This record gives sequence, structure tokens and C-alpha cells, in this order.
Amino acid sequence: MEELAKKLEEGAVKLHELDRILGDSNRAAEERRRYLERKTGVRLDAIGRTVIDFNKAVGRNIENPIGAAQIPIGVAGPLLVRGQYANGEFYIPLATTEGALVASVNRGAKIVTESGGARARVIKDGMARAPLFKLPSMIDAVDFVEWIRAHFEEIKRAAESTTRHGRLKEIQPFIVGNNVWLRFVFETGDAMGMNMATIASEAAAKFIQENYPSAQLVALSGNLCVDKKPSAVNFLLGRGKTVVAEALIRREVLSKMGVRPEDVHEVNVRKNLLGSALAHSYGFNAHFANIITAIFIATGQDVAQVVESSMGITWTEPREDGLYVSVFLPSLEVGTVGGGTGLPTQREALELLGVAGSGNPPGTNSLKFAEIVAAAVLAGELNLILALARNELARAHQALGRSK
Amino acid sequence: MEELAKKLEEGAVKLHELDRILGDSNRAAEERRRYLERKTGVRLDAIGRTVIDFNKAVGRNIENPIGAAQIPIGVAGPLLVRGQYANGEFYIPLATTEGALVASVNRGAKIVTESGGARARVIKDGMARAPLFKLPSMIDAVDFVEWIRAHFEEIKRAAESTTRHGRLKEIQPFIVGNNVWLRFVFETGDAMGMNMATIASEAAAKFIQENYPSAQLVALSGNLCVDKKPSAVNFLLGRGKTVVAEALIRREVLSKMGVRPEDVHEVNVRKNLLGSALAHSYGFNAHFANIITAIFIATGQDVAQVVESSMGITWTEPREDGLYVSVFLPSLEVGTVGGGTGLPTQREALELLGVAGSGNPPGTNSLKFAEIVAAAVLAGELNLILALARNELARAHQALGRSK
Amino acid sequence: MEELAKKLEEGAVKLHELDRILGDSNRAAEERRRYLERKTGVRLDAIGRTVIDFNKAVGRNIENPIGAAQIPIGVAGPLLVRGQYANGEFYIPLATTEGALVASVNRGAKIVTESGGARARVIKDGMARAPLFKLPSMIDAVDFVEWIRAHFEEIKRAAESTTRHGRLKEIQPFIVGNNVWLRFVFETGDAMGMNMATIASEAAAKFIQENYPSAQLVALSGNLCVDKKPSAVNFLLGRGKTVVAEALIRREVLSKMGVRPEDVHEVNVRKNLLGSALAHSYGFNAHFANIITAIFIATGQDVAQVVESSMGITWTEPREDGLYVSVFLPSLEVGTVGGGTGLPTQREALELLGVAGSGNPPGTNSLKFAEIVAAAVLAGELNLILALARNELARAHQALGRSK
Amino acid sequence: MEELAKKLEEGAVKLHELDRILGDSNRAAEERRRYLERKTGVRLDAIGRTVIDFNKAVGRNIENPIGAAQIPIGVAGPLLVRGQYANGEFYIPLATTEGALVASVNRGAKIVTESGGARARVIKDGMARAPLFKLPSMIDAVDFVEWIRAHFEEIKRAAESTTRHGRLKEIQPFIVGNNVWLRFVFETGDAMGMNMATIASEAAAKFIQENYPSAQLVALSGNLCVDKKPSAVNFLLGRGKTVVAEALIRREVLSKMGVRPEDVHEVNVRKNLLGSALAHSYGFNAHFANIITAIFIATGQDVAQVVESSMGITWTEPREDGLYVSVFLPSLEVGTVGGGTGLPTQREALELLGVAGSGNPPGTNSLKFAEIVAAAVLAGELNLILALARNELARAHQALGRSK
Repeated sequence: MEELAKKLEEGAVKLHELDRILGDSNRAAEERRRYLERKTGVRLDAIGRTVIDFNKAVGRNIENPIGAAQIPIGVAGPLLVRGQYANGEFYIPLATTEGALVASVNRGAKIVTESGGARARVIKDGMARAPLFKLPSMIDAVDFVEWIRAHFEEIKRAAESTTRHGRLKEIQPFIVGNNVWLRFVFETGDAMGMNMATIASEAAAKFIQENYPSAQLVALSGNLCVDKKPSAVNFLLGRGKTVVAEALIRREVLSKMGVRPEDVHEVNVRKNLLGSALAHSYGFNAHFANIITAIFIATGQDVAQVVESSMGITWTEPREDGLYVSVFLPSLEVGTVGGGTGLPTQREALELLGVAGSGNPPGTNSLKFAEIVAAAVLAGELNLILALARNELARAHQALGRSK
Repeated sequence: MEELAKKLEEGAVKLHELDRILGDSNRAAEERRRYLERKTGVRLDAIGRTVIDFNKAVGRNIENPIGAAQIPIGVAGPLLVRGQYANGEFYIPLATTEGALVASVNRGAKIVTESGGARARVIKDGMARAPLFKLPSMIDAVDFVEWIRAHFEEIKRAAESTTRHGRLKEIQPFIVGNNVWLRFVFETGDAMGMNMATIASEAAAKFIQENYPSAQLVALSGNLCVDKKPSAVNFLLGRGKTVVAEALIRREVLSKMGVRPEDVHEVNVRKNLLGSALAHSYGFNAHFANIITAIFIATGQDVAQVVESSMGITWTEPREDGLYVSVFLPSLEVGTVGGGTGLPTQREALELLGVAGSGNPPGTNSLKFAEIVAAAVLAGELNLILALARNELARAHQALGRSK
Repeated sequence: MEELAKKLEEGAVKLHELDRILGDSNRAAEERRRYLERKTGVRLDAIGRTVIDFNKAVGRNIENPIGAAQIPIGVAGPLLVRGQYANGEFYIPLATTEGALVASVNRGAKIVTESGGARARVIKDGMARAPLFKLPSMIDAVDFVEWIRAHFEEIKRAAESTTRHGRLKEIQPFIVGNNVWLRFVFETGDAMGMNMATIASEAAAKFIQENYPSAQLVALSGNLCVDKKPSAVNFLLGRGKTVVAEALIRREVLSKMGVRPEDVHEVNVRKNLLGSALAHSYGFNAHFANIITAIFIATGQDVAQVVESSMGITWTEPREDGLYVSVFLPSLEVGTVGGGTGLPTQREALELLGVAGSGNPPGTNSLKFAEIVAAAVLAGELNLILALARNELARAHQALGRSK
Repeated sequence: MEELAKKLEEGAVKLHELDRILGDSNRAAEERRRYLERKTGVRLDAIGRTVIDFNKAVGRNIENPIGAAQIPIGVAGPLLVRGQYANGEFYIPLATTEGALVASVNRGAKIVTESGGARARVIKDGMARAPLFKLPSMIDAVDFVEWIRAHFEEIKRAAESTTRHGRLKEIQPFIVGNNVWLRFVFETGDAMGMNMATIASEAAAKFIQENYPSAQLVALSGNLCVDKKPSAVNFLLGRGKTVVAEALIRREVLSKMGVRPEDVHEVNVRKNLLGSALAHSYGFNAHFANIITAIFIATGQDVAQVVESSMGITWTEPREDGLYVSVFLPSLEVGTVGGGTGLPTQREALELLGVAGSGNPPGTNSLKFAEIVAAAVLAGELNLILALARNELARAHQALGRSK
């Protein structure tokens, strides 16, 4: 072992070669950790203590592992969900380090559940990948797009040859000058599906180039997909699941908290609509990202996709019988197979929700999961705008009191 | 214990009361886990095995804990950084479940380091919180803003009375009709500072309402802050650290990989500028979010802030001597104290970078950390656009070969 | 007459009643003008001298007329256009008060024409109007959208019953909470078609409400149309004509002006792509609005639609044989019948382009006109980025000279 | 004359040379018109009949003139304005070809005036121009911006040396990679000021390049100004005048029209806030552009600037005593001297408003004008949302009636 340490020191062996050399990624992780400890004088004990078997994770989820990050998981619930796939009460696992977040979702879940639960629907479903081609001219680009339309079935065959569950639903073409983006939209079963979509798009792009040589591929992702960037195109056309959830909070429930539906609506309109309009934000909501991030970390989602998954709008209506509240999530990207969903803690969190692995029929687990996520977002969002509305009153009263 | 289980079952005791009842949050977490196991029939063993001491974490980072999520950490590096605060080689801890990500940053780090390293600078620094007030009329709103300007020093005193390190730098007022947002901008030392800014803003808002009773607080956050939502206001005015990093990759280094600076530039312009323009995206880059998310999870940042922290632009220039590449991160929100930075694995990850805890002088650790993050983003971004440029050529050649 | 003046003075007769009372809108215009002259002490001679017959214009183009504004028209050209409908050389009538604009388009037209002309294509065509409905709940909204899809043919019949040329192509539904926008897209022949689309949408909305009473119409235009507001939805889905134009400017033509294709490309990328990205602009171009406004005023278009008609992207490529330059106009709203196209000077301007009135077959005149407008935009845009590129060099040389 | 016609035909004389050759731009316009008539077979009589003296207009407002476009002007009013500069009743001249527009503003003006008039304030004032520089590196860019800050007074002197009324208020620097935009903001007196700002910026840029040779000017306008493109930067930082106007419409006034404040507010929130949020629009209003365009054409403004001048937000509040309504115009670019303001009909239209030419003190005429424009926008906007709210009720009642 000392010899190995020396070789690492001298650079004769690279950190990423340890898995191969030692034939065991758990030992490789340990050696790597020790090397860093020697190099930096920092102890990495906590990082080292993990339930993850790197012989399973390396090559699938991680390279150059040295251990794991541990994020506290709290539960919120029970939350009553009345979806098309999710029906019943759920305990939501939230991995976060932000104090008060779990408590906030928990309170919201209580209010929603008391009021009859959250209804939820996935209204669109499709993972997008948009390769970018350049053509000699705009005229050629127009011809190319016509050719694509005429050869949809062949392109679909080429794309689907790479996948068992993926299905090419649609190609959305965009032309700017001599540039053409082909936004491929796939059904991807229970997987979030980005990898599936990328591999299938690559096969499609290969077929296209072989049969249409004047179309030159610039990039397999032309940033119109759009992955891990906020965008209007995802907001309007959707990516992953487009989900809506809603609840009606009875007036007496709010009364006990000292607010009226009208007060909450006012906060929502002034803050979430008017404030976000002025900020030129893609988030017309209070804190979708908090809830989505916490669920994503706990359940092995691709956490960077929080960026677009948290876009959306909170809409409220004061009604005679209470407060109507709904959340709109245009681009929620979730899966129950693939990615980090098979890691030990992540799989347990999905099992807690009854959505681990493949659904029966395939695709239903991720749809159910999307409904639960939207319902949890509704609960967390409701609680925050309620709290703001209450504070407002409190302060208004204070101010009145003191201005005497 | 059985009795407790029974009470939980009957609802006589709530899950969130366990910490208080048992007087030990670690035992409370265990009881909560067991309750969920009984309720759902799911085993939560992996989630239960954690290094986190919930007696320290509850009330600070989590409520209702049942254990922890474990995310693999891989290291990329060494990465040579030449910042104002960060100088030397760093190993970047990346917590992710997305295969190939660590390898990608690692390859980028190698190329950047070989080319003399990444230069980085924090060009703006300030955490924002924007309470929203309503006034009787727009005329009153205009008067109110003038009053705010005239009483800046008093408001500053009120705000700073709540914090040791926070300093109110500026109040940016925005008027729409009779609505006024006061965007308070704070220096927050080594903390990311959102809580500090919120508490200080609350004190300021209280002072304002007491002395200007016709200004009624609608919401302590009026969505012009902007926290955890993508927005133009943060992009243009900054929030947290505004950071730039750059490197010059020598032509021969690229040559070995089979690409020219011109090829990489073309991919960047067509994909990251033109594609994102058409998508109406706030991310004019390939995958900033991937690198930032992985570092944020590993180091105990507020991961939901990836949403705005990952906004930004990649800019390239083909030059005679190689490829100039830079990244611009307008709203990178990081800290080395507070939040999740004190948890066991998170603290070790920060120590690995030499930025755990408070800097000397205060503030310098978070500035150093921001420079390292920007340099890592540069490395990961460079590697991806290089890869796309290489693929493009590969495919172009293939196409040429097959079209014979 | 004096009596009438007196009554106007006393408010017994209103200005807008004069047409009816006098039975002649030209005399009414005169009386109105005189009244204002007396009232304000201002002479309105120039406004009064007009070729417009208000007996034709009132009720169609104007109310309460007092005369006309006169805007200078200059011509640029000849401009060689090679479109699908427009083929040949055109003189472009530009109504503007901004010095240098006509000269700029003129120079651009010369360069484009010398280089073989501008190719142009309309790649999408459809006028949109999006009524907004509210439903009792999101679940009802989902059902409603399904009902709309199932009853497309009947809705289409209801919509088309109001128009001779209009044809409903598509209904694009959008759901947020319990709100539903139905974005109706119409073919509108040679008319710009907004009125046609509005009237047909009203009929469709009436049919829908009668047959689906739980859907309540909130507004016939729900701001997702989008009329006279810049928006991503028009940019991505189009409104009016989506047009692309392009040209290849030979290297030697640029050489004479002292610039290389590479210089112009650099200005375009840094200014029009990078600058607009940072500005969060919907105009990734230098000055589309200038050319479009001047043509719109001259030819009787709805000038307020310049707002969305001028959105778009300029794309350039330096090539071995010269500079490839193209413009992309996603939402160009033009017509050759209806609106102001029948007024005296406006009709002449359309005749000058050979597109006055209805085309044969119907629709071809507005398509031809759209191609000409895009070509003119290309000419004006090219000239400005060329000028900037030349200045840059000039200044660079100056700087070099003086820094000795 | 026949000889000249021949030379034009042969191309020996160019159209733009006629002014010089004939020594009279009015005759040149006539010859040009005749040439086009011969060339195209189209009669241009109406275009030819104009009050404009081209000997005054050529070189200032137009090149290659052939005559003028005539746009009907209608008046709306009286409109009571209670601004800081504009006080009293005004008749608003609106040049448009869109039927019903004048009537709409007229009805709105009546309602506003009856309710005590529109209050208006200019809350920010400054014309921006943003040259774009490139530096060798980002580090150099940072140094450059520091240098700019340190030499503000000298740069100001250089800029102001070119203008009598212009005053450099501020330089707003933006860095992306090695690119630097310096957004110069000028006070420009009664002129809209774009030309003044451009010339002054050019002088400043020249000074900068001479004294900082490593900063190379890429373009005098770097698209962060932003001129004639919709953008968040103008929305947030302002360009031209940032104006707010408001009114309180008494409940009984609305009652007579059959609507309640609550109904109008609902239309505003669902359409102008929610609809525009979903559309990703920069216009959170119903039709600001209509009113602004019509005033701009009538009064000789730079009509292409409608693009950004029409950005803005309509905000409403139902109150016990009526409907509070306000409009926010962040980037209204107007002037009363320069541009087209001196042309015959345009000058009369400005005189009608009492704002022709230079104010006393300078700058007050354009401020007064901005207040009037905002008040007119308020009137037109109010009328449209009222109409929509009334229709909604009508339809709701119909639906109720028929659903029996």
C-alpha cells in the first residue's frame, strides 16, 4: 500500500486509475481519501462512512469517489393526495439543511389534508433533446425541415432502436438563418429519461446525417432542449411532466389562523405575480424550489434539474367558501428508475412513497411520483403565503397600535 | 416504547412532538423511522445509518428527521486556481448521482491546469432581500421612497442592530403603482447571508412601519430579492457573489484532442448564445448547474439556490495562441459558515478546499470559495463544449466517409 | 356655424357628435379643428391640409378626426429580392423622421443587390387570438380542454361563420390552475387579420360558452395572443408571418469597404447575441424596429404591432467566399387589405411594391409583402453592423496611431 | 429635365444625387417620384401632396424623399392631468388608422376626468447609450472598470464637450468575460436625446481609447442601451422617462357602466398579470402600445422606440370607494425638440398640448409631455379593461340565461 501511495505522490498513478488497479472501488475510494488526507492534512472520516457500495455506483453514478455527503431527511405529512395515479396519504421525505423547511411543508400538508386533500394531474409528458444542425443556407434549412417531416417514421425507428421503453412522440423544428434545431420529444416510461433521450437522439442524428449529408451536426444538445437552464420554451411547451395541483382551503380553517382568503390572495398577486413580473423571473411563486430540491435530493433525482423543474405559477382565488389555491409546474423532470434512484437511501425514500422502480404498467410510477411532488409543492407554497399574509396583518396591527 | 408507538398510531402524539417528549432528537428520529416502517411496510435501514447528530441539527437544519440521504462524492482535480483569494491547486468535491459528471470536470481541470490555471475574480458581493410595501397612492409611494433615501442611516442602524457581521450597503427602490419594493443589499461576511438579510430586513421594515405608518408591509419578501427563482434582476444587479473566471487554452493542447479553437468557439456561439437566445433562457451556457449543484450538495450550501446561482454566460474567443474561455456567474450564493456548512460531511468538504468556517479577515473564506466554484464551473463547462466540438468533427468525418 | 361653436363651448354638443350633426365628416373635422384652435390658441393649418376623405375614414380608421399627420417618405433601393412570391427589384418606401435611416437601408440594399439579392421565405403563417376562460377547478379545466379537442370541427365552423377568408388552423390550449387560454390560430388571407381573428374568436367563444356553461369567459384576449406586447410565446410559436431572409455578401464587396467578414461577424456576436443576452432583450439584432416601423407607417399597417413584429435574430457566418448574413422575424404582422391599407398615401406605397389589395390567389400579396419587408430588414441590418465594424477598425487604428 | 430622366434611367445619376444636382430638395423629391412612376407605372399623387418643405427636412429627417405618408389624427379629451409639470385639461392628438382607438381613449379620458383626473409623476429620467469594449482578459476588464470609475470627471468632460444641454449622470459598467459595456446615462433636456447621447458617448469612447489603449471599442452601441428592442435592463434601470400615472374611479361611475371594481381587477390580474406571465411578455398591460404609437406618430417622436416605450404594468386595486388604477412605464422615450418634432403637423400637435419646443426651464416641456402621455395611456388602458370586464359579465349572464 505504501508503494501505491508513493506512486500517487509521484503522479505515476492517477487518482482515477485506482479502481482499475485495485479491482475494488470501495478500496479505491479509501485510498483516494487517504491520499487527499495526506495531501491536505484534512480528516475525511465522516465522508468515508457511507452505506454506498462503490462497486455498484462507479460507472453509473460517480467517478473518483471518496465517500458520500449526508443530508438530513425530515418527513412532512401525512399529505392527502387525490391524483389520477396517487391516491391516499403520503409522508414526504425532504432532504435539506435549511431549518424550518420541513416544518413549513408539514404545516401546509396538515391544512391541505384537513381541507380534503390536493388534487393533481399530469397534463403533458415528454422528455426533450434538441440537436442543432447547420445547413448551407436558410433555403436548405427549410427543405431540410420538410424532409424531416416526410421521414418521421424512419427517424423514429432509428431513435427507438436504442431503447426499450422510449418512444419518439414528436419532432419540433426551429429555424434561425441556416441553423435548425430538431426538438425531439420522447415518452420515457418511469425513467426521467434524459439519457435515454440523448442516446436515441444521437441515433436519430446519425441516421439524419447519413441520409442528408448537407445537414451538419453542430451539437447533440443545441440548448433548446432545455436541460438545467431556466427557459420560456420549457415553460410553454413543457419538458418532463407538466403538472397541476390544487386545493380548496375552507374559510374556517383560515379563520383559525387569523387570515381571510382575500388576504392570502393579495399576497399572492402582489408578490408572486406583480413582484415576479417586475423581477423578470420565471418563478411566479414563493418557493417551489425549496420543496422540489429537498425531494429531489432524497429520492435520487438529477438535482441540477431543479433549475427548470421549479419554474411555475401559484394561482389563488378567494371564494365564498374559502381559498382556492393551485400550483402549475410546466417542466417537472422526475423518474423512479435510473439515475440515482437505485442508491440505498434514495431507493428507500422512493419506497416510502410507494413509487420505487418500474410501475405497472410502466410509466405509472413516475406519473404517480409527479403528482405527489406537485401536491407537496402546493402544501409548502400554501404555508409560506399564509405565513406572509399573517405577518402582514400582525405588522399592520402593530403599526396601528404604535402610531397612536 | 410500545406505549409511545400506540400513541403515535392513535394520533395522541404527533411525529414532530417526539423530540420534545423523548428529550433526544436521535432517539426521536429512530422512533419516527420505526413509525413510518410500521405504517408503510418499508425498511429505512440505509436512511437510518448516518453520522449526523440530530441533537445538533434539529432546530438548525431539519425538523422531523428520520435519518439522512447519502450522495456519492467524487473528486475532480487538481485544479489550479489563480484568484485574489484562492491561489494554488484544489481538489473539488462533487456530490452527484449523474455518471460522467466528475470525470468531465476532472478532464476540464486537467486541461485548465496544464494551460496555467483559471483566473477568477469576485466583481460584486451582496445578499439582497426586498420587502414589499403598499402605499395609499403612487404619489405617496414617491414620497415614501424619498423618505427612505433621507433616512438611510437610521434604517441602516435598525437593520444592523440584528447582526454582528451584516452591513447594509444599499437600498434599491422600485415603484409600480402604489407598490414599493425596497431591495436591501447586505454584506454578510462568510455567511451566504439570506437569513441574516431576512432578519435585518425585518428589523428595518419594522422601523419603517413605525415611523411611516402609511406604508403597509405586504410581504417581507416581495419576489424582487430574488431568492430561488431565475430572474433578470439578479442577472443584472447581482445577488450573492458576481464572479468571473477565465483561462487561455493553448492551441497545441487542443490540437492533441483534435479540435481547433475556432471549432469550440462555433459550438459556443451557436449553442450557448444562439440556442439559448431562441429558448429565451437565462442560462447562456452548457451545464453550469451540474457543477454548482454537485459542489453545493457536498459543501452544505442551500441547494435550492442553484436555480439562480447557475445563471450565467460562457464566452469564448479563438485567438492565435489558443482558445480564450470565460464564465460569468452573476448570482452565485455561497457561504462557509451557517446553513448546512457545519454538518459532518459538509464541513470536511469545505476543509478539503481550505475554506471551512470563518475567514481571516471575515468574509475572505466565502470569497475564496466563490473563486474556486467559478474555476470549477469553467473546467466543467470547457470540457463539455470541447467534447461537443470533437463529436461534431467526428460525425462530420463519418458523414463524409459514408457519403462516398 | 356660430351657434354650433357656442354649443360646443357650452358642452351641449360633444366633439364626437359633429359627424352625425353635420352629416359630413370632412366638415366635422374642420369644426373640431376650429374648436381646438379657439380653445388653445394654436393654429392647426398643417394638420388640416390632408388628402384624406374623412367620410371614408371615419368609422373605419379614425374617430374625432381633425386632420392628418404627415411623415416624410424616402425610398431605398432598388433591392433585389428572391422570394417565393417576391421576385425582382423593389423600391422600399420608408416613412420616418429619423435622419440617416433611409440612407442606411439604401446602402444595405445596394450591397445586397450587388451580391445577388436577398432570398426570403415565409416559414409559418397564422394570426392568433387567445380568449381566457375560468373553470371551477383545474380538473374541470383539464376536462374542458379535452372537450375542446373533441369538438374542434364545430368550434371551427362557429369561428369561420363570421369570415369569408379566415380559416381556423389550430387551437393551442394552455392551463394554469383553473384558467384556460385557447390560442386560436387563423389563416387570414391578405389581411393582417387581427380583427378577423377577434370576431371569429368571439363567435367561437360564444359557441363554447353556450355548450360548456361552466367555462366562463374572462377576456376575449387573455394576453397570450400576444398583440402589441413583446413575448416569448410569439417568438417561439409565431404570430402573423414567421419570415427568414438571407444573403451572401462577397468578400471583395466588403474589402472595398475596408472590412472582413470576420470583423462583421464579431460585431454581430458580441453586440447582437452577447449584448442582447445580457440585456435580457427579445431583440437579438441591431435595429429591425427602424426599418419595420418606417415601412409600417408608409403602407398603412397597424404600427403598434412593430412591438412584436420587430422581435428577431440576426445571424452571421464568415465564409471563405464572404459573409453569410440572415435575419429571422418570428412574428411579422402585415396585410395588404384592411386596416390603413386603403388610405390614399398608404395604398400608393403598397402599389409601389406591387402588393396593394387582394392577391391572386388570395393571400399571396401579403406573403409577397412579408418577403419584401424581411429583405429590407436584412439590408438595413447589414448596413448598420457593417458600419459598426468599420468604425471599430477606424478607431482601433486611431488608437494604435496615437498610442505611439 | 428629360435629360435628367434619361441619366437616371441609365444609372448615370443616382436617386440620392438629385438634391445636390438640382439644388432643391422639393424638386428632387418630385423628380424622384416621377422616376418611380415611370419605372413602376404607379401614380404617387397622394404621397406627392404634402406640407413638408424638404429643403428643411433632408439631412435632418429624411433622405431620398418622394413625399409624405398621411395618417389620420383624431383627438381624445379633454383629459384632466394632475402632474408635477402638466396641470389641466388636455386634448390628446392620436395619429392612427385603427378604428375605435380614439373612441376608446376618449371614453377613458371622460371617466378619468370625471373622477378627478390622472395624477402623474416622472420618477426617473435619463437617456442611455452603452458602448461595448473588449479587453485582453477579464482581469484587464476589472482593472478597466476601476479606471473608468477613477476618471469619471474627465470622461464626463469629454462627453459633455459635444453638447449644450446633455449632462452625463452616471456610467453603469457590466462585465462578461473580457467584454465591458459602459452604459452612459445622460440628462438631455427637452430632447429625447438619443443622438445627443450617441455623439457624447462617441467622444467619451474616443477619450477612453486614447487614454486606455488596451480597451478596444467593438461597437458604439453594444445592445445594452437598449434602443428599439424590448429588454429587462430598460425595464429595471429605466431609459428615457420612467413614469407612473394613477386615478381612482369612483364606484358609482363604474356602477353606471354595470361593472364593479372587483370585476375590473379580476380581468387585470388574470389577463395582464397571469396571461402575460405565461406568455413571457414584457407587457403586463392590455394595450399601452396603441396609445403610445398614436401619440408618437402625431408628435414627431422616434416611432420605432414604441418597442420599449410601451413596456409596462397596469396595476389595479378594488377599494371601498372605487377602483384604483395605475400604469407604470419604465422606459418612455419622448422629446419636444429635435427629431421629427419640428415638422409642420408634428409641431402643431405638440403645440396643441402646450409642449412644443424648449421648456422654461429647459427640460420641463419633455417632462410635462411624459406626464400627459402616461395619463393618456392610463385612460386608454382603463377603457379597455373596463370593456373586457363588461363583456365578461354580459357573456356570463347570457350563459346563465341559456343554461337554464
